[in-house]
Amino acid sequence: MRMKVGVLGATGAVGQRFIQLLAEHPWFELAALTASERSAGKKYGEIAKWRLDVPLPDKVKDLKVLPTSPEKVDADIVFSALPASIAKDVEPEFAKAGFVVASNASAYRMESDVPLMIPEVNPDHLGLVEVQKKNRHWDGCIITNPNCSVIAMALSLKPLMKFGIKGVHVATMQAVSGAGYEGVSSMAILDNVIPYIAKEEEKMEIEAQKILGEFDGAKVKNADFAVSASCNRVPVIDGHTEAIWASLCDNPSLSEVRDAFAKFKCDEVKGLPTAPEKAIIVHDAEDRPQPRLDRNAGKGMSVSVGRIMEYADGVKYIAMGHNTIRGAAGASILNAELFCKTYKR
Amino acid sequence: MRMKVGVLGATGAVGQRFIQLLAEHPWFELAALTASERSAGKKYGEIAKWRLDVPLPDKVKDLKVLPTSPEKVDADIVFSALPASIAKDVEPEFAKAGFVVASNASAYRMESDVPLMIPEVNPDHLGLVEVQKKNRHWDGCIITNPNCSVIAMALSLKPLMKFGIKGVHVATMQAVSGAGYEGVSSMAILDNVIPYIAKEEEKMEIEAQKILGEFDGAKVKNADFAVSASCNRVPVIDGHTEAIWASLCDNPSLSEVRDAFAKFKCDEVKGLPTAPEKAIIVHDAEDRPQPRLDRNAGKGMSVSVGRIMEYADGVKYIAMGHNTIRGAAGASILNAELFCKTYKR
Amino acid sequence: MRMKVGVLGATGAVGQRFIQLLAEHPWFELAALTASERSAGKKYGEIAKWRLDVPLPDKVKDLKVLPTSPEKVDADIVFSALPASIAKDVEPEFAKAGFVVASNASAYRMESDVPLMIPEVNPDHLGLVEVQKKNRHWDGCIITNPNCSVIAMALSLKPLMKFGIKGVHVATMQAVSGAGYEGVSSMAILDNVIPYIAKEEEKMEIEAQKILGEFDGAKVKNADFAVSASCNRVPVIDGHTEAIWASLCDNPSLSEVRDAFAKFKCDEVKGLPTAPEKAIIVHDAEDRPQPRLDRNAGKGMSVSVGRIMEYADGVKYIAMGHNTIRGAAGASILNAELFCKTYKR
Amino acid sequence: MRMKVGVLGATGAVGQRFIQLLAEHPWFELAALTASERSAGKKYGEIAKWRLDVPLPDKVKDLKVLPTSPEKVDADIVFSALPASIAKDVEPEFAKAGFVVASNASAYRMESDVPLMIPEVNPDHLGLVEVQKKNRHWDGCIITNPNCSVIAMALSLKPLMKFGIKGVHVATMQAVSGAGYEGVSSMAILDNVIPYIAKEEEKMEIEAQKILGEFDGAKVKNADFAVSASCNRVPVIDGHTEAIWASLCDNPSLSEVRDAFAKFKCDEVKGLPTAPEKAIIVHDAEDRPQPRLDRNAGKGMSVSVGRIMEYADGVKYIAMGHNTIRGAAGASILNAELFCKTYKR
Repeated sequence: MRMKVGVLGATGAVGQRFIQLLAEHPWFELAALTASERSAGKKYGEIAKWRLDVPLPDKVKDLKVLPTSPEKVDADIVFSALPASIAKDVEPEFAKAGFVVASNASAYRMESDVPLMIPEVNPDHLGLVEVQKKNRHWDGCIITNPNCSVIAMALSLKPLMKFGIKGVHVATMQAVSGAGYEGVSSMAILDNVIPYIAKEEEKMEIEAQKILGEFDGAKVKNADFAVSASCNRVPVIDGHTEAIWASLCDNPSLSEVRDAFAKFKCDEVKGLPTAPEKAIIVHDAEDRPQPRLDRNAGKGMSVSVGRIMEYADGVKYIAMGHNTIRGAAGASILNAELFCKTYKR
Repeated sequence: MRMKVGVLGATGAVGQRFIQLLAEHPWFELAALTASERSAGKKYGEIAKWRLDVPLPDKVKDLKVLPTSPEKVDADIVFSALPASIAKDVEPEFAKAGFVVASNASAYRMESDVPLMIPEVNPDHLGLVEVQKKNRHWDGCIITNPNCSVIAMALSLKPLMKFGIKGVHVATMQAVSGAGYEGVSSMAILDNVIPYIAKEEEKMEIEAQKILGEFDGAKVKNADFAVSASCNRVPVIDGHTEAIWASLCDNPSLSEVRDAFAKFKCDEVKGLPTAPEKAIIVHDAEDRPQPRLDRNAGKGMSVSVGRIMEYADGVKYIAMGHNTIRGAAGASILNAELFCKTYKR
Repeated sequence: MRMKVGVLGATGAVGQRFIQLLAEHPWFELAALTASERSAGKKYGEIAKWRLDVPLPDKVKDLKVLPTSPEKVDADIVFSALPASIAKDVEPEFAKAGFVVASNASAYRMESDVPLMIPEVNPDHLGLVEVQKKNRHWDGCIITNPNCSVIAMALSLKPLMKFGIKGVHVATMQAVSGAGYEGVSSMAILDNVIPYIAKEEEKMEIEAQKILGEFDGAKVKNADFAVSASCNRVPVIDGHTEAIWASLCDNPSLSEVRDAFAKFKCDEVKGLPTAPEKAIIVHDAEDRPQPRLDRNAGKGMSVSVGRIMEYADGVKYIAMGHNTIRGAAGASILNAELFCKTYKR
Repeated sequence: MRMKVGVLGATGAVGQRFIQLLAEHPWFELAALTASERSAGKKYGEIAKWRLDVPLPDKVKDLKVLPTSPEKVDADIVFSALPASIAKDVEPEFAKAGFVVASNASAYRMESDVPLMIPEVNPDHLGLVEVQKKNRHWDGCIITNPNCSVIAMALSLKPLMKFGIKGVHVATMQAVSGAGYEGVSSMAILDNVIPYIAKEEEKMEIEAQKILGEFDGAKVKNADFAVSASCNRVPVIDGHTEAIWASLCDNPSLSEVRDAFAKFKCDEVKGLPTAPEKAIIVHDAEDRPQPRLDRNAGKGMSVSVGRIMEYADGVKYIAMGHNTIRGAAGASILNAELFCKTYKR
């Protein structure tokens, strides 16, 4: 039996990725799409400017768009592609009304009783849901995934944790899709780099420590290292590339580091439809990973790692992941799948 | 009276920049252009595929292209836009024959008796010319400028030296022109980032220490800090953008750092025609510098610095400079100008 | 003595070009900038997001932005960079109040008593100003320039008029700047072509006939040929490229056509500061003109023509011009200069 | 039982597309890959710089690369991705030796006894194979597909033939992949249009008439209309966009034209694995087709048509197709499939 799911904020760039990924999902049935008041009542195919390079699924075209309010939505799980400012008010309403809210928004990520998850990295943090329900007297709950840039970094840092991470420098080269369809004008970015993305460095500097922290059944104790981030926009459509330096306590050999990446796996995600065969793919070619060539690896859910090298204080490498699949819609869906598996829904 | 100058390897991307910058030079008269044996004897306008967005100067069109050999060239100074592998053999021939060779090639940069210069940073290193002549029994000499990526970094590190530089992390986002006209195919870079540039990280990790080192009249003692570089190619035509972290011994305030950048100047370059009014331009806008908007500042000779911020271990910022002007042709010309001023030529 | 001029709608892409071109103008003194009510009263440097690759002139930074209303503006000539929908109401108010309105907007181009001008093509049409003033009882007047795509086409068709133009097919490849700074999102155009520009084909199909028509002192009789246009957006920042087929009554040789382009000139624009030395530059290289290499020819005011070839029914060629200089701001300024010269202002 | 096939010139852009499309082909088994003498004997995975965004199939990695000579290749059909200059000599050798050569090269397209085919358009032209064998005393044969730009045009003209085509104007906006991986440098095309592609206009002006001509069992009588083409390169990776004007004898209504496109089908290709469900997809959205969004329709084998409009002399529209799939590798494979079906191989 399939569960009914909905997408909150279904018309934007991330909303469209949710629809693409959910249209053929084996566990979930896409039953509800919400958008702004203005669009409610119309067919999705009429109001959405569909801009993916796969066609809008026929069965979605005729779905009536609903207002973003719990009493209008008939579903068990809702995926939130809402902007943070709206998510702040709306997501608790849905959680209160009994929905599982799998959110891509940043509004609740850092709340102490909200799980901030990458299923392959910290599946046990899902236990925070119990804490949250108790705290907030909600029938439902909010589960969040990290910022798109954080996911590729945090996932690639996980196998390095055993060497003792002392600190991280990271410079990102981020795709324009991360800002939404209208987020970056062509005049701004053609033949250019913009060395600034609003609030991005702040997110990169705090989210990974929570994800890589330890959950003791009541709360998460953050991992103890500092991240310094420089976030840059480049003329790439999809795929965030990150130059990462991890300074390490231990002094592993290059092949130990390569092995740690290559052998990384997580049993908890076995059988989840959206989990890729390999969460981390290691490239040995000297000029990989590249966003255009590697972003679709693992159907967009694998993070590619390459150019692994030693430096004075640890290891440097390149990590690259698809920002609107692994870094957004796919991340939320994988979270929801883990939830269903864990709680036998 | 104007000095006669020549360009060795005049048909490539850097060669064309030399021609553009020398065509109207107040001190130098462009008298000789060399290219491969195959092109020798033909008019420059016939063999060069001119690809700058300013027209090829008329008086250059009809210059006969010469073979790259000292006895064919009638000039006092030659600018070398040769590839390193060819420069290795050819530049000493010219120096031996009495030419001042102002070279953009990497072949001799790290030789202990060859000055590696940025006139605003280490004008005194020019003294190595005397050492070199004595050592090598040459009538002429070789003077080099750094790799294009190093220049923006080293110039911006100079004002931070007084705070004590302990180490540097740098991630570059480099323009395609740095690889020459045919260096990066469009299929490779459209909608893409290539996290690899052959030999670039190696250069970035050793050249700055020599430039920022101390010259005692006999040799240069390298500055004592490590650089770790991650070099990336992005779909930008001109202008290398660099995310730099300088870890510092002292703990300067942000405004002290800003001041150090903003007030940086060097008296030795006064009056040099190619020296920009400001070697470093500080941007306070949160999204600057950007290559497309800022690469032509100071006629391409200013390095733009912005997004200056503190981090746990020092200061992080963005530096950006025009890679084929400040980072190549303009750098060599400025070196030659300093030479002429110093030695009263 | 310099005339005072203003720019209506000074913050957008075309508005900024006006400011760039007027800042150092020998005849005009930039005295007034208007913007939306919201911005009025603030300094231009504070409210405008300046995005040209030349710096915002210092003296403009501190100009107070005015509301777009005649009684607030102290100037003789105003340049209109307003959107058509606003220009429709505002431009007549300014004309009525005695201003010469040199407009880049489409609102009044096709009115029978409003000159639609390219000074090198139809300088005599300026006489419509007298008709207009009489008709409308205005102290001032409105003078318009064509749509950016039309200018390159109409200018290049002018020398062909003597061969008898029977019809025109034109396919454009237009730069993103034509849509304004926020007009084309990067997600829409990176690695893409958009074969549609709202209302552009309609403009291309009617404006040239008026420009190339005959003015008998009272009205313009349109030139008698049909234009069929296909307008496409490509990932280029500035410079519209146009593939043009002109079917001709006569059967000129290729060299007669080349000569007609190359020798084209117009005495009426002599001495106008913004008129380029050559309105049309002929390229003989097989792969020119190209927008990135040729858009700045004649300081952006020359139209480049190349790949001139015969075909069954006439001649085909490529025309390319800078869309925000020759095709917008520069066009309006040249119109105003012709007005000043003609009416001895 | 599956047939053994080979790819001649397997390392280039088109060669890689052949490999991608043949790796999972239900009828064909990829058994032989050839390349230059230099590479022969090595494993494909070692010598090919694989640059598609799908991984190189594992079973292909270890295939030994062969020299391009008939006695070394064990296969029934060979697909030729050779440059025309090499194909000229090599393809007849293979045909003579009994191979069916399905060629993407231009060398033999216009020979009177060589079929130039688009299976949905002129399947009966395959009959030329008999003529060819008889003429040339070959055991095998050469079957060609048109130039990449011609395919989208000719396929879209086919349904218009019934209205009587008098002439065609076409302006192309072609992807860089059409020139091969190293064919267009990034410095040449970033922020640019190049209004020239060597020999492309010539091909566009002659090939369609043969394809749309009538085969009487002995020879093809070309269709009787003139094509005038303007070929342009734009910064797009894959997908050629074409603005087409077809002047027509009849005066069909817009809906008759739309219907002709939308209902176009060809029974002869039924059951061919590479034939798309629809050879022509009609778009009604005003801004489609677009290469980035539509090139993969029908797995890259459908041509998308849109912006259908009347003009004085007929109909104008936009056609767009994937140049290295429908326009090259996929075209040759579909030809081979038709051959196998027809001759019961």
